[in-house]
Amino acid sequence: MASNASSKTPLRQAALAVEIIAVGTELLMGETVNTNATWLSQSLAEEGFNVYHHTTVGDNPARIQAVMAQAFERSNVLVFTGGLGPTEDDLTVATITSYFNEPLVADPNSEAVIKAFFIAKGQTHSPSNLKQALRPAVAQAIANPIGTAPGLSWTVEVEGQPKHIIALPGVPREMKAMWPASLEALHTFAEKQGVKAQVLAKRSLHFFGIGESKIGEGLKDLMDVSNPSVAPYVGDSEVRLRIAAQAPTLQEAEALITPVQAEIISRLKEYYFGEGDTLRVEQVIADALIKKQQTLSVAESCTGGYISHLLTNVAGSSAYTTLNVVTYSNAQKTALLGVPESLLAEHGAVSEAVAKAMAVGIQQVASSDWGLATTGIAGPGGGTPEKPVGLVWIGLASPDGGVTAHRVQVNPKQGREHTKHWFAQYALHTLRKALKAPHESFDL
Amino acid sequence: MASNASSKTPLRQAALAVEIIAVGTELLMGETVNTNATWLSQSLAEEGFNVYHHTTVGDNPARIQAVMAQAFERSNVLVFTGGLGPTEDDLTVATITSYFNEPLVADPNSEAVIKAFFIAKGQTHSPSNLKQALRPAVAQAIANPIGTAPGLSWTVEVEGQPKHIIALPGVPREMKAMWPASLEALHTFAEKQGVKAQVLAKRSLHFFGIGESKIGEGLKDLMDVSNPSVAPYVGDSEVRLRIAAQAPTLQEAEALITPVQAEIISRLKEYYFGEGDTLRVEQVIADALIKKQQTLSVAESCTGGYISHLLTNVAGSSAYTTLNVVTYSNAQKTALLGVPESLLAEHGAVSEAVAKAMAVGIQQVASSDWGLATTGIAGPGGGTPEKPVGLVWIGLASPDGGVTAHRVQVNPKQGREHTKHWFAQYALHTLRKALKAPHESFDL
Repeated sequence: MASNASSKTPLRQAALAVEIIAVGTELLMGETVNTNATWLSQSLAEEGFNVYHHTTVGDNPARIQAVMAQAFERSNVLVFTGGLGPTEDDLTVATITSYFNEPLVADPNSEAVIKAFFIAKGQTHSPSNLKQALRPAVAQAIANPIGTAPGLSWTVEVEGQPKHIIALPGVPREMKAMWPASLEALHTFAEKQGVKAQVLAKRSLHFFGIGESKIGEGLKDLMDVSNPSVAPYVGDSEVRLRIAAQAPTLQEAEALITPVQAEIISRLKEYYFGEGDTLRVEQVIADALIKKQQTLSVAESCTGGYISHLLTNVAGSSAYTTLNVVTYSNAQKTALLGVPESLLAEHGAVSEAVAKAMAVGIQQVASSDWGLATTGIAGPGGGTPEKPVGLVWIGLASPDGGVTAHRVQVNPKQGREHTKHWFAQYALHTLRKALKAPHESFDL
Repeated sequence: MASNASSKTPLRQAALAVEIIAVGTELLMGETVNTNATWLSQSLAEEGFNVYHHTTVGDNPARIQAVMAQAFERSNVLVFTGGLGPTEDDLTVATITSYFNEPLVADPNSEAVIKAFFIAKGQTHSPSNLKQALRPAVAQAIANPIGTAPGLSWTVEVEGQPKHIIALPGVPREMKAMWPASLEALHTFAEKQGVKAQVLAKRSLHFFGIGESKIGEGLKDLMDVSNPSVAPYVGDSEVRLRIAAQAPTLQEAEALITPVQAEIISRLKEYYFGEGDTLRVEQVIADALIKKQQTLSVAESCTGGYISHLLTNVAGSSAYTTLNVVTYSNAQKTALLGVPESLLAEHGAVSEAVAKAMAVGIQQVASSDWGLATTGIAGPGGGTPEKPVGLVWIGLASPDGGVTAHRVQVNPKQGREHTKHWFAQYALHTLRKALKAPHESFDL
């Protein structure tokens, strides 16, 4: 797995022990994967906190309190996720509160937010929704910017020891939206305990077309260094390299990262497509098209609209998008894109010739600068020995009038949706390289 | 979050309490998601065992033993995953063994398997590989059919109480391959304790257009019953109700579920759209279209191809899909779909009139039975006081020549992609209701 600063640098040893407690019987029933613990752990590691335990417990007050008692013995900070919803089984806050024999009081701000939330949706709140506004009077509420369940931030004394409790909803989107405020509270608590967490700077570099092991071999010398640390994370179709450095100031930490980043990019240039925590290839493409003031149109067959969906996820995509089409049938490939019936008859829909004709066809119909096309076999059915499931032809028509086609064979073992995803990623990266993005110096 | 049988039914009180202990610092660093705990929990629930706790601890002997001591106090069965590999920080078996001051002995069978494993690969084993063959003399080895690390199955006395320990590798493939033998050992242990595991049956019902809190109020009487238990789970745009029942036989368990399922559906009929663990509305639509032998075409603006993507995720969607388009610009709405410029000028692209014209337009261009259209404002920009971000008009042209439009206002707080997702869900469910699926008796 990934190397990481915290497992090596003494810097972190001073930090506080954090325990993540997930509350929800559905987790114990195996109906939900506890991705919250993973996401929180990664963030906490990057912020210089030590996570020594994850605990999952059901919607059961007695067991939740037993888990609390045990956590207070070994941890300084308890981060709860789950059990903040409106139903009867959402009892995390009530249970935490009764553990300390504190009364529950209604938080007026939270009540106002909940009422406004439903008014905005043109609905009226139910009584059970207001239950979410209850909290111990001595604790702070953490605002929920996208939902109705506020969180809890509370510093308490347990047998003379200061402990900090954070309680967040289990819905990942809401939990993540409330995390920055929670982290602030944690850092304040840490400083009060005289724990000076080092500043951590990090950058994410994105690579397509190279595997984790190959990257590991190519960067072994850099990955053996602990500060800055270089750690690969395997995404759905890319490898993300995280460079993290710790130092007393952000400036010093950034200074540790910069030369390593330059070295990595120079070694893996042909696979590199950008920097940023949440960077996606469709954003790189959007930036390039807007910079060049060029337009793009897409004709999809096997990807079924997924490429168009990804491209239009970028805010402002209307600047370069006028028309995308999903021509699933041969008849529509001919009727709408002008792909000659003879071509379809001779080569079949999944072919270099048809991919090129689709790309040129959509470029002309939409009168766009670029035309991108996909035709392949997403499966599970429809494969033949010559044209197996997982085969895709990617067509690309350029502003200079040129047209190219690229053949890709994807391993279809993981199913239709995964295959569609890979088809789309290869198509988008083909376009990205043709746009010479992110670097003009890139060559196709 | 959800309510659950295990927190209520006396049936389950009789069963054994299982704790899943994942060992691995990478889990605490957020570098690996603990999918093993989820997978094991699901299997254990179906086998009638109660999982009351998940615990994750790092590759640290002291902390592993502290977690063991605590687990023995509250659990009858400890299932370890991880830390069985050949490297230095794989120390689960050694730590478990030393907890009981037992000597480690080499298991001759395991050694033979390890040696054969490397010979088969034309390699020679390293000394560290043989370390994996060590186990306490009094324990049983669980054979690893696809790797070199054998597992551990061990019944021990802890303060007069019989406990069973299972230790499995962290590599999911290997862990899963070794699970059947582990389950057998667990059932044997359970029978020795005089515990007859109950069979668990469960069904998932899906609802759209109603919130968790409203469902909780509408089904309170049913959710208060413990066997069968009724538990809501909130998805991205739906609420899933899980009905679970325990009985000595599957048939008896199913018989407990059936009447409750019928009652729930009759109460929430207008929101119900199907049954199944992984059911999606696009599958319900696919089934209905194929049954009626009808075709569908989609003209998307604000959803940008996402509806087409979802529909074509269904294997066999080519049976009812010939053409879908993403007409992002007004010019293309006119050129391709024949939406009159005057209509766009008078009402604007986001309007009832244009939604209807787009639906009829794509129905005609694709000569399909149904035409579905979306035009709205996904944001973050482009909103006005009259037409705010989150507003969408859904147009639907029917085989009978009729055309309707539906106005939906989504709360856009969660961002563009989430808004697109809700737009698509409302559009798909509008079509689903028009198809009278899943029930002919549904009315629009």
